[in-house]
Amino acid sequence: MKLADKVLKGDVAAAARLIRCLEDEVPGTAKELESVYLHTGRAHIVGVTGAPGAGKSTLLGCLIGFFRKKGMKVGVVAVDPSSPFSGGAILGDRVRMQSYGVDKDVFIRSLATRGWKGGLAKATVSTIHVMDAMGKDVILVEAVGSGQGEVDIARVADTVILILTPGTGDEIQMMKAGILEAADIFVINKADIEGADRLKATLEGMLGMRSRSARGWKPGVVLTEAVHDKGIDEAADEILRHRAFLSSSDELKERRKQRARLELIWAIESYLNNYIERMSQGTLEKLVSELVQRKTNPQSAALKIISEISSGGKNGLFTD
Amino acid sequence: MKLADKVLKGDVAAAARLIRCLEDEVPGTAKELESVYLHTGRAHIVGVTGAPGAGKSTLLGCLIGFFRKKGMKVGVVAVDPSSPFSGGAILGDRVRMQSYGVDKDVFIRSLATRGWKGGLAKATVSTIHVMDAMGKDVILVEAVGSGQGEVDIARVADTVILILTPGTGDEIQMMKAGILEAADIFVINKADIEGADRLKATLEGMLGMRSRSARGWKPGVVLTEAVHDKGIDEAADEILRHRAFLSSSDELKERRKQRARLELIWAIESYLNNYIERMSQGTLEKLVSELVQRKTNPQSAALKIISEISSGGKNGLFTD
Repeated sequence: MKLADKVLKGDVAAAARLIRCLEDEVPGTAKELESVYLHTGRAHIVGVTGAPGAGKSTLLGCLIGFFRKKGMKVGVVAVDPSSPFSGGAILGDRVRMQSYGVDKDVFIRSLATRGWKGGLAKATVSTIHVMDAMGKDVILVEAVGSGQGEVDIARVADTVILILTPGTGDEIQMMKAGILEAADIFVINKADIEGADRLKATLEGMLGMRSRSARGWKPGVVLTEAVHDKGIDEAADEILRHRAFLSSSDELKERRKQRARLELIWAIESYLNNYIERMSQGTLEKLVSELVQRKTNPQSAALKIISEISSGGKNGLFTD
Repeated sequence: MKLADKVLKGDVAAAARLIRCLEDEVPGTAKELESVYLHTGRAHIVGVTGAPGAGKSTLLGCLIGFFRKKGMKVGVVAVDPSSPFSGGAILGDRVRMQSYGVDKDVFIRSLATRGWKGGLAKATVSTIHVMDAMGKDVILVEAVGSGQGEVDIARVADTVILILTPGTGDEIQMMKAGILEAADIFVINKADIEGADRLKATLEGMLGMRSRSARGWKPGVVLTEAVHDKGIDEAADEILRHRAFLSSSDELKERRKQRARLELIWAIESYLNNYIERMSQGTLEKLVSELVQRKTNPQSAALKIISEISSGGKNGLFTD
């Protein structure tokens, strides 16, 4: 409990330790997170996404500067892809953001997932909760890569920013992956490159057709040159405009409801995974080996396990 | 049951219908899949992955030709990213593969997922089962994009081929995402482009350090020019060599065990998701709304639901 109390007081070292414990799944950490959770829900969560090389980290650095000038406390979660095989993480270009390392009101954490599906999203949400409870006003979440990862950002953020660059054709990939539809704000970075205006026109054309705009939000398309600090105020103003929109409509409530539902389902899955892991190795391996020999099928085998859970909840299902 | 019986006889129309029913989650389809499952495990499953534009579809077309010449029956599962928001799918360049549409021993299906995480992988596995039960000897699975998607391919395929192109720097992204480590065969396509030999040397250098090679398999690096039909025999021979390696070692058994375990866990998750969906809307919504108000936390709320499952399995958990 002590760790959580310190986090609530904004203690940076305690927050860092709690996040590390969560990552490593140190026993007892779930309890700490529970009490932290009760003090969350105030921060505005901004997902920043885009293809590698689009300039996410640079723009993020600029946004930190903007919010700090407004006196807001900033959290940054940098999500790094890592190998599920080696368990290692390759740190990228976030060294650039280290210039904020001395400002105690900017808290930056890189995440590496060692698990499979959903793992990164879960770790991201836990880290967001810790930063929220610390008293950060805005939490920027950077997601690298393209595909599934970005879609997850849309599930945990209040505002999703998609960064595109002219001439890369990224918008086609993003459209395919459904990311375009998840974005609330579009930033065309490296706007000095030929084709920026054309990309803006294309995006605005697509947005005109978008069903989600029916909910009352018309996404802005902002041109920036993050390396030259150009267009940052406009991009940041869009974030604040979106935040105001969310609060004035039912949309914020709706998004947070969806996030709560998602976290509830994750928690259930996590309990059951623990249960299955704790099942006598024999039972599980016997079923797996019957599956390999095609003596049974996944559905019937699953029913066996579920009936064991239903009848034997006392077998450790409720111990942490 | 009729549909499954027809599939086992190799009926193309029945197989297509079963796959469509699975995609649409038509009630009763799970039962059909159960009986199909008992007749699977013979086909060799090859995952083909790489960045957009690397030439996956072209190479796939060439491989189909190779295996057909050997008298083998071929299944192809083309996995397309699609929007989780719109529910639609954008079909890409697989028109090229339609020239095989008249050969009744080549069965090609494009998949679009409408669901969230894990959805595509699950649909892929079901489609593989149907093709396996139809009597296909080899099933080629094409995954588009980069990131999470490819990693999933490694979980469902016996052999994973990664296609790279010189001069794109794709290998760096792939390394970051852990895909390099998941691949059993490396194909450097468009090998006429400057830098192919350098890329080959780099890959071979990396492979030297790879822990997985300790299991006895040394991945080959093959140069191809798929559009000119060059290097295809070498690439296909690598697949056959890997298949022989898997059969002669414990590795095939191990991979299929892992896949069975994965499918078992998916089946459990799927039952529980159904259960939660069927929970009286009031119970779930009440918990979600308590979460939004921070009156409880996801862990405690999850325990409430699990205790309901444990005590009330009769409330519909075992129906369907």
